[in-house]
Amino acid sequence: MSGLFITFEGVEGAGKSTVIQYISTQLRAEGYEVVTTREPGGIEIAEKIREVILNKGHTAMDSRTEALLYAAARRQHLVERVMPALQRGQVVLCDRFVDSSLAYQGYARGLGMEEVYQVNEFAIEDCMPDLTILFELDPKVGLERISDNEQREKNRLDLEKLDFHKKVEEAYRQLKERFSDRIKSIDAHEPLDNVQAECETVIRSFLSSK
Amino acid sequence: MSGLFITFEGVEGAGKSTVIQYISTQLRAEGYEVVTTREPGGIEIAEKIREVILNKGHTAMDSRTEALLYAAARRQHLVERVMPALQRGQVVLCDRFVDSSLAYQGYARGLGMEEVYQVNEFAIEDCMPDLTILFELDPKVGLERISDNEQREKNRLDLEKLDFHKKVEEAYRQLKERFSDRIKSIDAHEPLDNVQAECETVIRSFLSSK
Repeated sequence: MSGLFITFEGVEGAGKSTVIQYISTQLRAEGYEVVTTREPGGIEIAEKIREVILNKGHTAMDSRTEALLYAAARRQHLVERVMPALQRGQVVLCDRFVDSSLAYQGYARGLGMEEVYQVNEFAIEDCMPDLTILFELDPKVGLERISDNEQREKNRLDLEKLDFHKKVEEAYRQLKERFSDRIKSIDAHEPLDNVQAECETVIRSFLSSK
Repeated sequence: MSGLFITFEGVEGAGKSTVIQYISTQLRAEGYEVVTTREPGGIEIAEKIREVILNKGHTAMDSRTEALLYAAARRQHLVERVMPALQRGQVVLCDRFVDSSLAYQGYARGLGMEEVYQVNEFAIEDCMPDLTILFELDPKVGLERISDNEQREKNRLDLEKLDFHKKVEEAYRQLKERFSDRIKSIDAHEPLDNVQAECETVIRSFLSSK
């Protein structure tokens, strides 16, 4: 028996991590074994790769090098954490996965979604998510939410300009059309309670279809 | 004006590094500006990636992760060292390049040459070598030469069993047929003087055709 692999995507500030915690609590209460994770997920090799990517001294890093490093970290996280959980029949809730690379690096950084997809195909083989929840949100709203949240540590991508995040949003819209069977979107402008409820509905509908 | 990108390939112990030094001396004496290099070539980001690959504690490293990391290090070395030299019109002599990944990881490790080639295509775009010299040598002879050379520090690949190196040799033969315009082979069983002379002949013939 194999588990279920559910990923969560969207621009920053959409509320993914809060909703993932909510969903995991709901599913566990019903007896599902749930693993929540995000890359690099504490996997030593993936953490080490992440350090190379995020090192502030590495200003000379080429965007293709970066895309290959993200794919490498993704592979290792997949092999060490995601695949074993799926083999145990667990539900894996993962904050961001391959669609993030397509949107941020393939489209917003201009490397090409098709090319970045090919590299990621090598990394993940056929381990694509069974379901992806896309949090749709005006990136301007997302950035305002982030800057209002003093406790949240800003990362390199948070600091990109609004134009960059608009491209990310546009990429996600394209991905939703291309992978319409896999990607289900929810409106993340709504109050958190509504977003959680909508997300729960999508996931319950998916689980009942299995 | 763009330079010339020449790579050197073959099983270990074939004498590549000695011959590269010889060729660079010959070419410089004739006024060519020559850069000799090998990955990661002192490029900080590439060195850091290499440290992740070679870290002895990383026994959990998946072979696809490894292939992606090699491609990432290759990309950065190419962008920071090889491409600028080619743009200055210099001759770049590089000890191992993309064919090594195809032979060692694609074929000998069983990931598939076509798949590893696609990942490397993303890394190098269209910056393929203008000429590749393949040092053909019975891998058994190569391994004996290495073990006779006490001063040579053994790396992880040197320590693989003979069967592995035989697969590498078989892969190189396939590559020579597939890229027959680019890859020229020389017989590395011969005494060093002969190998150097043969290599020089191939390179002179190539240069005169430019």
